[in-house]
Amino acid sequence: MSTLTVPPQIPSVAEDCEQLHKAFAGWGTNEHLIISILAHRNAGQRKAIRHTYAETYGQDLLKDLDKELSSHFEKLVLLWTLESCERDAVLTYEATKKWTKSNQVLVEIACTRPPKELILAREAYHARYKKSLEEDVAYHTTEEFRKLLLPLVSSYRYEGDEVDLHLAKSEAKILHEKIKGKHYCDDDVIRIVATRSKAQVNATLNQYKDEFGNDLIKDLEHDDDNEFLPILKAAFECLVYPENYFEKVLREAINKRGTDEDALTRIVATRAEVDLKIIKGLYHKRNSVPLHRAIVKDTHGDYEKMVVALVGEDDS
Amino acid sequence: MSTLTVPPQIPSVAEDCEQLHKAFAGWGTNEHLIISILAHRNAGQRKAIRHTYAETYGQDLLKDLDKELSSHFEKLVLLWTLESCERDAVLTYEATKKWTKSNQVLVEIACTRPPKELILAREAYHARYKKSLEEDVAYHTTEEFRKLLLPLVSSYRYEGDEVDLHLAKSEAKILHEKIKGKHYCDDDVIRIVATRSKAQVNATLNQYKDEFGNDLIKDLEHDDDNEFLPILKAAFECLVYPENYFEKVLREAINKRGTDEDALTRIVATRAEVDLKIIKGLYHKRNSVPLHRAIVKDTHGDYEKMVVALVGEDDS
Repeated sequence: MSTLTVPPQIPSVAEDCEQLHKAFAGWGTNEHLIISILAHRNAGQRKAIRHTYAETYGQDLLKDLDKELSSHFEKLVLLWTLESCERDAVLTYEATKKWTKSNQVLVEIACTRPPKELILAREAYHARYKKSLEEDVAYHTTEEFRKLLLPLVSSYRYEGDEVDLHLAKSEAKILHEKIKGKHYCDDDVIRIVATRSKAQVNATLNQYKDEFGNDLIKDLEHDDDNEFLPILKAAFECLVYPENYFEKVLREAINKRGTDEDALTRIVATRAEVDLKIIKGLYHKRNSVPLHRAIVKDTHGDYEKMVVALVGEDDS
Repeated sequence: MSTLTVPPQIPSVAEDCEQLHKAFAGWGTNEHLIISILAHRNAGQRKAIRHTYAETYGQDLLKDLDKELSSHFEKLVLLWTLESCERDAVLTYEATKKWTKSNQVLVEIACTRPPKELILAREAYHARYKKSLEEDVAYHTTEEFRKLLLPLVSSYRYEGDEVDLHLAKSEAKILHEKIKGKHYCDDDVIRIVATRSKAQVNATLNQYKDEFGNDLIKDLEHDDDNEFLPILKAAFECLVYPENYFEKVLREAINKRGTDEDALTRIVATRAEVDLKIIKGLYHKRNSVPLHRAIVKDTHGDYEKMVVALVGEDDS
């Protein structure tokens, strides 16, 4: 459910590279040309462009983009041009560097990516930063935050659909007891959210609702003073309702006074080729305005153009 | 540093399969024939045999071996015939099933395997058991044991040689303080042993010795009442001195009244193609008797023959 539009007939990779190289040449940069190419090529095509660009001009396309562009536009173009595992490595690295208790990026990446992709992101992290994601996460966090985040980013969940309903029932009961007692950081709560397969967590949440009448995620909303709770809640949401989670992040990013470009950039760059079409639909329904119109109202210049090119201008 | 001996000229894979199939036929099983083939083929050759056997006879070689063999001999032949990642999946699965506080198998596998191989073992675990290694580990352990074992089995350490000496110094200090205060299960102790690269842990242990005069591993030996300590100690040993660790496991398995065949089988099956030659050398030096002689004295029958075939009869 991608929002990406690739023209039916595209130039050869060599031509794309030549155009990009031209876009950087002379006085000023041709941002329009850069958007018209990179925002309309899929992951495989962008990878081929990077490869051919390096072979042809002896330079890394990303370095040239970095030199020529600036601000939020630069950030979006760079993230978008990276392969998805490298992009996740960059985003998690930044998140560990400026870790705050309200930062949910690590949870988001650890819990919404298919388990194998999370492993690839960890591999890309090794290659890029000469250390492991989990050692940075553990080093930059403490207490209950480390207790939850370390197993989340280290997880390699089972990806099958099988669920154990008996187990779901017993773990729903454990979760209910712990949440009722406000033991949000209890060992078993962490164990369940950090190790069970997504299908199993979903079954547990269903049992929770059947048995106790409430959504577990709603039950995690009541304690305003607790800084850990939003992170725990985000983990469950990302595992079971990722599109709803992303819609909410977009909504908050756009509704914020001044717009949270970092969040908008991250969601657009990471979801455009995955599920942004679904997220767009949810956004429209929840906010009574199509996503691209909300973006146009809130952003400007080349950044606006690039975001809109990736999000698409259709209303659904 | 493998102890495996493969004859310079070996029969074709099809011939090996035919011989194995014959070994199972009629009254009684020809164990000698099975040993003469399987104990003298490397991992790639065994994999090819399994593949061709299934194609030729429509049956899984492992199932036929399981039907025909028994006891410790069966266990060794089965483990040996598996691919290394499947073998680790089987061993870790068994370890979670019969978890006791003295069981070090999970630590051993999590800390001695190259990080990428641990990921492959976790993948094989998914395929075989329809769940993740970490969820079983977390489910079957509690308290400080879970706190250490969960991040150990979930780790994907950086594999490079780069070390940060400044960090090693500061973390040696942390470890020294915590060990002195007997806070063995402190968050930072767990963080360091569970997430740092092997090269970095090694540098930290060197700094520890330089700064405080003792081996960290020796400092973890003093507290006889603590059941957690041997597991923590094993983790450091497996990360930094794996061959010494394996030698000790072999020594204890053989010296034990009645022999610990499970441990002997595990070490021989998992190390024969990796570093058993080094471990043998250490064993000889430490026990003043060559490993194969100690084994012959302690075991018998087909099991003895298979172990000796894998360990080799040379004295070094």
